[in-house]
Amino acid sequence: MNSLKNLNIKPIENDELRKLLQHNIDQKTKPVGSLGYLEELAIQIGLIQETTKPKLKSPVMLTVASDHGITVEGVSPVPHEITWQQVNNFLNGGGGIGLFCKQFGFDLYVVDAGVDHDFQAHPRLIDKKVRKATRNFLKEPAMTQDECDQAIRNGRDVVALFAEKGSNVVGFGEMGIGNSSPATALLSVFTGLSVEECTGPGCGLDKQGVQNKASVLRQAIEKHGIFDKPEEKLATYGGLEIATMVGGMLEAAQRRMLIVVDGFITTSAFLTAYEICPMVRDYAVFSHCSKEHSHIKMLEYLNGRPLLNLELRLGEGTGSALAYPIIQGSVAMLNDMTSFGEAKVYNVADQKGKGQSE
Amino acid sequence: MNSLKNLNIKPIENDELRKLLQHNIDQKTKPVGSLGYLEELAIQIGLIQETTKPKLKSPVMLTVASDHGITVEGVSPVPHEITWQQVNNFLNGGGGIGLFCKQFGFDLYVVDAGVDHDFQAHPRLIDKKVRKATRNFLKEPAMTQDECDQAIRNGRDVVALFAEKGSNVVGFGEMGIGNSSPATALLSVFTGLSVEECTGPGCGLDKQGVQNKASVLRQAIEKHGIFDKPEEKLATYGGLEIATMVGGMLEAAQRRMLIVVDGFITTSAFLTAYEICPMVRDYAVFSHCSKEHSHIKMLEYLNGRPLLNLELRLGEGTGSALAYPIIQGSVAMLNDMTSFGEAKVYNVADQKGKGQSE
Repeated sequence: MNSLKNLNIKPIENDELRKLLQHNIDQKTKPVGSLGYLEELAIQIGLIQETTKPKLKSPVMLTVASDHGITVEGVSPVPHEITWQQVNNFLNGGGGIGLFCKQFGFDLYVVDAGVDHDFQAHPRLIDKKVRKATRNFLKEPAMTQDECDQAIRNGRDVVALFAEKGSNVVGFGEMGIGNSSPATALLSVFTGLSVEECTGPGCGLDKQGVQNKASVLRQAIEKHGIFDKPEEKLATYGGLEIATMVGGMLEAAQRRMLIVVDGFITTSAFLTAYEICPMVRDYAVFSHCSKEHSHIKMLEYLNGRPLLNLELRLGEGTGSALAYPIIQGSVAMLNDMTSFGEAKVYNVADQKGKGQSE
Repeated sequence: MNSLKNLNIKPIENDELRKLLQHNIDQKTKPVGSLGYLEELAIQIGLIQETTKPKLKSPVMLTVASDHGITVEGVSPVPHEITWQQVNNFLNGGGGIGLFCKQFGFDLYVVDAGVDHDFQAHPRLIDKKVRKATRNFLKEPAMTQDECDQAIRNGRDVVALFAEKGSNVVGFGEMGIGNSSPATALLSVFTGLSVEECTGPGCGLDKQGVQNKASVLRQAIEKHGIFDKPEEKLATYGGLEIATMVGGMLEAAQRRMLIVVDGFITTSAFLTAYEICPMVRDYAVFSHCSKEHSHIKMLEYLNGRPLLNLELRLGEGTGSALAYPIIQGSVAMLNDMTSFGEAKVYNVADQKGKGQSE
């Protein structure tokens, strides 16, 4: 694929820097290791930014929207018009993502990757529409390889723009009625888990609806096959918002940005990016574990530990936004927490490798 | 106990208000239920404040500090001088709790409930010292009933003061070398779980240290017995910071404040408050699940769901502070998230009781 040429994501590992970061954290006035996952997160961010003093700059949230041809098969309980209505809602600062971006300091942009609607121009709307909705992948591939390639390219371009403006944190989220179907199909074809294991209620299907959705997905996969190349899986079963996020995530890793991954659909984009280039994994933080039951299977496959487990299932990037204060907390700990020397607290660890408190 | 006279905590349940809160949340532009535990939290806070428009006012963090006679039995790997050194560190804005209170908007006060040190006066230090450290409860009860009563009274007084100043959120945390021993003993005598099941490494005991600690606690409980009354268990096995927190939590519930509970030791105080008056449960949010392995047993006994699970084991109130943005998010959702009507988004739930999105 043209869009993947010049992709060159570097691993973040750096033994010397890791030791320095660990040393600095172990000098903080607390028992060694007592801030748990916050410490690992601080080290990861230091390694990404190649410094002992990382800074989170101009965090941007990209909520990527698209429609899905597969919705004609009854895989979603709600009409696809909700997609464009919600995009307008977000652009006006509404919805969960509008609210939480304001609250937690993300600059929100909505990327139109393929919404079946003509939007008026808006300073927060980025027009990267490849076509109005994917095709119905029960009948034919959701995208041609060229369309998929264009969507990946678009995602890379959008993220490159924000990187050049100085952002080093990018949250991803999505809006697209029906998009738990492509996400579920991708989970199945990437991991080998059965469609039945992977299929859940999405935004609110009843039991019969879930059975129908699984049946549609199974028939589609039997028809097209599972393919070898991640790009083929993506073009056949994916969505335009998913492909655009894939490109955005790869570009973000290439530019050493921290990637904050949202729920089930966003993680399916990350899974695809990971299959294209496993190095992207080093740059990701998984914000939460969704109530969609197979999100945890995706996270396990990616060896990803979610920061939150609040049974969210809204998407949009809301989990990414809600988890951001914890990420800020980890960086603040590394940069600003007092050390034993500064605080005149006796450092037990210097004597015997242990710490104090709870 | 004199300190428990005039205690009259009311349950928060109110069917009519709950329905109104649920209705308002279900009008937000999202699938019904899709913000998961955030929605339950918003309803709880609305019920506590008896309004559909709750506000979080002047959140205060009380980090209660004390020393413990039981430390002479080698139950902690670090010297008890760390307690007073850390108190000074916190008062200067240092340590994990100093940092996170600044970051997440808590007004931090350190309550000296029984530290073995003479502090200089400080505007952030509240002197409620009952005595310098508890007694060694392997030999005799940690506190007399009078001392324990005084500590509970002190906690009530401190919280009453902040309530009168307008705070309606109070986070609790602690600092006290050795205090995982009283917390473990309380867990055992309240729940009937064996001392061995309950005992963990605290701030960093090795395997042999954990065995010694369990042995000390088992001997103490065999010597004194398990008692019927929670106040007797508390006086015999507790700590001055724990008893002070018990009083503070009960007073907070009585004044309809939201109580943000920290880790293992703070939860042992909450457990004691709960055994004294189960109604206190309605007012609590459990901020996190500690890495101390038996914290989860405490939370299960209390039917408490932790907001975070980051393997923290620092105490001080750090988990309470880190979880606060999520609490703020839940209240913002209730008050400020757009409704279907405002956003001109089609409300599918009006038609068939379902929602849209992921």
